[in-house]
Amino acid sequence: MSVGLLDQSELSVINVGVDGFTQSVTDAGGKAVALQWQPPGDGDPSLAWALAGLSGDADDEQCAGSRIDRANALAVERIMAAQPMLVDVALHARDVWPDVGRTLLHAGAPVEWKNMCGPMQGAMIGAALYEDWADTPQAARAMLERGEIALAQCHDFGAVGPMAGVISSSMPVLVVRNEAQGNMAYSNLSEGIGKVLRFGANGPDVIERLRWIENVLAPTLKAAVKKAGAINLKMLQAQALLMGDEAHSRNAAGTLLLLAAIAAPLADADVDAKARRETLAFIAGNSQFFLNFSMVSSKATMDAAHGIDGCSVVTAMARNGVTTAIRVSGLGREWFQAPSDTPVGLYFPGFAEADSNADLGDSAICETAGFGGFSLAASPALVQLVGGTVSQAVAYSREMFELTVTRNASLSLPNLDFTGAPCGIDIRKVVDNNIRPVITTGIAHKEAGIGQIGAGIVRAPMACFTQAVLALSRRVAGSPSC
Amino acid sequence: MSVGLLDQSELSVINVGVDGFTQSVTDAGGKAVALQWQPPGDGDPSLAWALAGLSGDADDEQCAGSRIDRANALAVERIMAAQPMLVDVALHARDVWPDVGRTLLHAGAPVEWKNMCGPMQGAMIGAALYEDWADTPQAARAMLERGEIALAQCHDFGAVGPMAGVISSSMPVLVVRNEAQGNMAYSNLSEGIGKVLRFGANGPDVIERLRWIENVLAPTLKAAVKKAGAINLKMLQAQALLMGDEAHSRNAAGTLLLLAAIAAPLADADVDAKARRETLAFIAGNSQFFLNFSMVSSKATMDAAHGIDGCSVVTAMARNGVTTAIRVSGLGREWFQAPSDTPVGLYFPGFAEADSNADLGDSAICETAGFGGFSLAASPALVQLVGGTVSQAVAYSREMFELTVTRNASLSLPNLDFTGAPCGIDIRKVVDNNIRPVITTGIAHKEAGIGQIGAGIVRAPMACFTQAVLALSRRVAGSPSC
Repeated sequence: MSVGLLDQSELSVINVGVDGFTQSVTDAGGKAVALQWQPPGDGDPSLAWALAGLSGDADDEQCAGSRIDRANALAVERIMAAQPMLVDVALHARDVWPDVGRTLLHAGAPVEWKNMCGPMQGAMIGAALYEDWADTPQAARAMLERGEIALAQCHDFGAVGPMAGVISSSMPVLVVRNEAQGNMAYSNLSEGIGKVLRFGANGPDVIERLRWIENVLAPTLKAAVKKAGAINLKMLQAQALLMGDEAHSRNAAGTLLLLAAIAAPLADADVDAKARRETLAFIAGNSQFFLNFSMVSSKATMDAAHGIDGCSVVTAMARNGVTTAIRVSGLGREWFQAPSDTPVGLYFPGFAEADSNADLGDSAICETAGFGGFSLAASPALVQLVGGTVSQAVAYSREMFELTVTRNASLSLPNLDFTGAPCGIDIRKVVDNNIRPVITTGIAHKEAGIGQIGAGIVRAPMACFTQAVLALSRRVAGSPSC
Repeated sequence: MSVGLLDQSELSVINVGVDGFTQSVTDAGGKAVALQWQPPGDGDPSLAWALAGLSGDADDEQCAGSRIDRANALAVERIMAAQPMLVDVALHARDVWPDVGRTLLHAGAPVEWKNMCGPMQGAMIGAALYEDWADTPQAARAMLERGEIALAQCHDFGAVGPMAGVISSSMPVLVVRNEAQGNMAYSNLSEGIGKVLRFGANGPDVIERLRWIENVLAPTLKAAVKKAGAINLKMLQAQALLMGDEAHSRNAAGTLLLLAAIAAPLADADVDAKARRETLAFIAGNSQFFLNFSMVSSKATMDAAHGIDGCSVVTAMARNGVTTAIRVSGLGREWFQAPSDTPVGLYFPGFAEADSNADLGDSAICETAGFGGFSLAASPALVQLVGGTVSQAVAYSREMFELTVTRNASLSLPNLDFTGAPCGIDIRKVVDNNIRPVITTGIAHKEAGIGQIGAGIVRAPMACFTQAVLALSRRVAGSPSC
């Protein structure tokens, strides 16, 4: 399609479509700009028809698309109303999931042992050693190969875990209640940096630190939370956005805000002096300690928006190290997945892209709730770390407004003159605008146990969203289009 | 002066000077812009000559201006090399100043009792009550009127105090050593918000809190600092700039960073459990607690640049509630002062500009060292509080580059793509560019004891700088001009 703006002096053309037209106009001495545009569904007719059938119309309340719009409005209302409160630290996951038994939870969608990436296999082996289900890594691996340990997704237990995301029966978990809707969410505790289970390390030092978390950190935090009363994690996330965090890959402020929230209560709590000091030193020395809190807060927030009939809002994005998978509010428990991309960013000295694992972890729940890549405008310091500029950071947040239902006034982005963060990813907008959600992420070495080798930015695969659009289209089939 | 750009079609004029010329061109149908320009020294010939005599020339090493340039280079080298370490909390000011006796230190330049603003008089009375020099406010006032209590400037004791800045013999003080130059600096401790001595309140609750600071907060902090070892305050300031503080009127991040630095050491320190809890709760509940630390760090930094022969860098800006005063590195202890402006900003409900005191306090030492108004680009959240936009915040920092010798790479401003903060105010540039230093500040009620009624932005009076330029000109008289 070409639109000519004819005036007295010359031919001016806006060309939408085949590039050759632009060339022919400029060859003839005219002015022409090529508008970057692609047809809805990226040229796939079935997708274009599906999208057309799902788009709303303010003048037709009964059509499918308008019902989706209303369902989405309810979803973002619940997201914005969420009050995720840290109410407890359970000393063992089995305290909240009595039937968890010999099951290992992991990040992302289901994946068979033999297809798992190196870091996730390493973390599984480490968890089996930690649980004393096996004496050696070899024995643990054999058990897992023989299927003697059950596998499940964190998300199916209302939980989220960073990177490999492995949670086992004896690990302590954060317990969060969304006071607005009453739903619960859980996460494990940060191990700090270096050789850690979540990157697939499973040596004696890793297991020892897991036991310290179980026996020292968790009881101490539990006592502090009991003294402090419930801690509003959303308030901490919102304050952190004013302090240079995007609450996914940068949590320096969130960690300090959490420390400030528990420091005085902990001084009052009946805990061992050594445990108190070790806990405070561990938190103060680990600027990503708050990540797990931001994740579980986001999970409690997004679960409140799940299960709304006809709703096209994404309620989870998660990566198992092989695929990136999404869940959609109106599409039940089904994961829509596609192979994960490798993050683009900066590598620590001695490492390069060839070393990196595909994108990994449940932490993209933060983006789903409006943090991370969606709030990049808040975090110039992070952008510098991953090799970008401040204006790029702002541009990412602006771009994400194109994908989302509304702006969340509770999550204010200073560098966008305090407008609210993008809220509620609408699968229709992702596909129609051909813009993929941006995620800030750590980069794991593809081999178990080497750990983090960089930090960067990745996009969720478009195929997750096209599949979901087609599924939603099938679900509303028979309803009148707008 | 008017410059006509003559082309075939019409007259275009850039007019520099009297506005009437612009009008006459536009009246005649031409295009004209009036360039905002003023002659150096704002039209004062003696000032223009003084400035001319002080300007450097790279080709003439021996002339006065080039020697000033070299002195300034040394000054900013010392500012950037400063390592202000919190080494102790002295339980009483007399421990560091054995001869302080019955002297009250105050903010800014010397001011007689009868000329003091309300908040400073109120603070003086409160300090006399706290020291048990008088039993009633009336008796304290009478003593002060009769001159029975000596007055001195914080700055002359190497100290700084916010607002009224009153420090007396029994008050605890922060002790900072600049490890690079060996010089010392001191400040009192934050009382929190509400009715506080620094705003002139002096009721029983105020005195009681001062005693709690003396008997609980100070010994507890002292014990924590002893356990922690010296704390690098410049590192905390630099990190705070990455977290939305400008380290003068916003210290939310600085306060949390300080809390994190002392929390674990304090858990190990041999202090009473109640004192530990009260101290942590007081800091966690007072987001400006770090202000006094930022001030004393800035004082230790700027004193290292003072006393360099011929140097035109400002080493202190301070306000006593009547005048704003500056000291210049190469001009000894002399204060160059002029009546203070009233800050422009937002008032708390129920208050207006008519209630406000003239700008007050030693806290502009932060700007002198590159924080506050000079680092406003770092603090969109503060700009919102004082009624501005993010782009205005960035513009303030950019403008301050026009006044300063260099950029301090240690103090990185995220929103200016991590360029260093403006460093080293050069009195020549202030006068020559006719741009006054910008200061972020709290607004005090003009009556004693009502407290803070708003927050805003103020500019240091130009007359401070013109006087200093003339004084420097007299000092170099006889040296060859460049």
